[in-house]
Amino acid sequence: MAKKTKKTSDTVTLTSKDKKTLGSIRDLADGVVQSADRGRAPYVDIPSRSLSNVRFNQSKRIIEMGSGTNRRELFNLGQAKSYMQTLLVGSGCKRLIEQGKTTSIRGLFYLLKHTIEGASEETFDTQDECDPIIEDIEVSLDSMREELHLYAKNAGAMVGPITLVDSGDGIDCSRMGSGGYSIPSIVEPNIVQFKKNSAEFVLHVEKDTVWRRFNEDKFWREHNCILTHGGGQPPRGVRRMLHRLHYELKLPVYCLLDNDPWGYYIYSVIKQGSINLAYESRRMAIPAARFLGLRSIDYERCQLSPSVQIKLNDQDIKRARQIAQYPWFAHKKPWQKELDLMLKNGFKLEVEALISKDISYVTEEYVPSRLEEGNFLD
Amino acid sequence: MAKKTKKTSDTVTLTSKDKKTLGSIRDLADGVVQSADRGRAPYVDIPSRSLSNVRFNQSKRIIEMGSGTNRRELFNLGQAKSYMQTLLVGSGCKRLIEQGKTTSIRGLFYLLKHTIEGASEETFDTQDECDPIIEDIEVSLDSMREELHLYAKNAGAMVGPITLVDSGDGIDCSRMGSGGYSIPSIVEPNIVQFKKNSAEFVLHVEKDTVWRRFNEDKFWREHNCILTHGGGQPPRGVRRMLHRLHYELKLPVYCLLDNDPWGYYIYSVIKQGSINLAYESRRMAIPAARFLGLRSIDYERCQLSPSVQIKLNDQDIKRARQIAQYPWFAHKKPWQKELDLMLKNGFKLEVEALISKDISYVTEEYVPSRLEEGNFLD
Repeated sequence: MAKKTKKTSDTVTLTSKDKKTLGSIRDLADGVVQSADRGRAPYVDIPSRSLSNVRFNQSKRIIEMGSGTNRRELFNLGQAKSYMQTLLVGSGCKRLIEQGKTTSIRGLFYLLKHTIEGASEETFDTQDECDPIIEDIEVSLDSMREELHLYAKNAGAMVGPITLVDSGDGIDCSRMGSGGYSIPSIVEPNIVQFKKNSAEFVLHVEKDTVWRRFNEDKFWREHNCILTHGGGQPPRGVRRMLHRLHYELKLPVYCLLDNDPWGYYIYSVIKQGSINLAYESRRMAIPAARFLGLRSIDYERCQLSPSVQIKLNDQDIKRARQIAQYPWFAHKKPWQKELDLMLKNGFKLEVEALISKDISYVTEEYVPSRLEEGNFLD
Repeated sequence: MAKKTKKTSDTVTLTSKDKKTLGSIRDLADGVVQSADRGRAPYVDIPSRSLSNVRFNQSKRIIEMGSGTNRRELFNLGQAKSYMQTLLVGSGCKRLIEQGKTTSIRGLFYLLKHTIEGASEETFDTQDECDPIIEDIEVSLDSMREELHLYAKNAGAMVGPITLVDSGDGIDCSRMGSGGYSIPSIVEPNIVQFKKNSAEFVLHVEKDTVWRRFNEDKFWREHNCILTHGGGQPPRGVRRMLHRLHYELKLPVYCLLDNDPWGYYIYSVIKQGSINLAYESRRMAIPAARFLGLRSIDYERCQLSPSVQIKLNDQDIKRARQIAQYPWFAHKKPWQKELDLMLKNGFKLEVEALISKDISYVTEEYVPSRLEEGNFLD
């Protein structure tokens, strides 16, 4: 249609991480060539992402994948298509890395979707067909999605006495206005580098609306901390950011979440990793994170009004019982007590419920006294 | 529970806007007192937000509210509770403004929710009961939610050669890293002030994933524009920001949206305002905005692969026909042609579909040539 405008980048500088990832993709492809050369049927062994291949590592205190794999073969009618898709995703990521560009999983889908030559079949019919293959490639290459140059929707913000560099721009997170620094979905060291930090801990809150209260009250300034939120269940970028803040800057991470099964689950994911993404635990999970969220006991302790109770529904009750049985909560008495009391109460409490005491009760009394008393759940 | 820590702000400086809003709230309350003094039944007249009271203003080209009102009386069994709720929301907003604090609509709900003295009834049972009352107060006082110190979830980001001040912090939007400046939900002039701008137009894209492609390719630098996204249907903060950029800095606004009824609807809301929030059109709608989104003709014009077609479903077809009949599209031949062709095609196209040509086709060819040719829909 239009005249060709100049390309934005003619030469791409690959980072050492990029080179490593490209190496893994080449190894995957070499395996195919070698099989063919030897006259053998080409295959790929994909680490199994089923529940049966996930276990809780007691000493590291994170959810890990086991060593089970599934073989995917080209000359197997039931596997030929997914075999082809696997190599296609690998080649798409190779192309992204070589061009020094990133895209969304939706973008990769469109990049790879086409009618197979000489057939009426599509490489991928829907996004749902592409997403698990991306995860297969992640586990096979032991490369996080971000290292494959793929990004998720970004959500989450951060503010506090820390200066970082993001894509070459210096960012002073103490001077980012009311919205804060928007945490990107890729926060790997080649994109985000920490510079100066004087914060002593990280306070992670569940929702942006609560985060705004803390930011407006300049809680982070008074308590010298970094304040983050993840817009509910934190996306990968936020989890990875918390992980880096914790391990690289040695900052304790406290999580202010709701007193409900969803809040507990978010805590579980931040702390131990998620079952779905078990292969990423060691780069995302923070076993030393602490729960500073609302407690079932707070209803009495803070003398909250009955008006703030939200009745537990059947789904909540079911989820609470499941969470109580997670191996990482099962042997912890305080958590069992916590979950028991919530079930006995018959209601849940949102952090926003503290507003019924005073608009700034949560920032001026609740959290400061919890921090002072060291009143956390582990 | 804990010792009282010091309040974050003892003296609150009210802006002139705050004083005006407080004045309107006082007028509302004075009306009640006057009625009582005169021995008359107190009432509030609330501008009607029903569809029948919404009309398209042909000369201003925005959706406006008519002059219809509904009377809400204290001594009317069916209205007493909503009357009480109306005054309660007014007093809650008064408290927020006087304290110089803002909160979410969830926060206001908790602030106001309590058991009515001497009764077993709650002031509000659920959030759903509170939200329409907030809108009632907005229209009655002719004050936007933001002026009542209430905020919505924030979403959306911005990058480009513009410097602004947000809550006292200087923000250079050309140096905000990969995530950009997170557009807050309140961008009123008392919070956000524009300083230096050298951008010549605003390119608003629908999704953050597309926005990232443009940001990564530094499109805004090459084309000297401000690049925004609203995470789908843009929230109030983003619409208000676009409005201010357009009217205060005189920047044309181009919208890169999907070729589907949802994309058209987003355009309609940005341009003419929304039916639900008709009372806010004059502070949000941008009648001069232009549609630079994917066109039905692009499938042929850009020689896209059949693989990128997404079949229209029944809902899409129904929505497309509704949109064609909107008074602001009904007499526009290019829009009728556009919608007809989409229905005739039988498929929709996402902006991401352009990736099938090349990862950066959208930033390096598609948008530059559309801009150069002035190829917009009005």
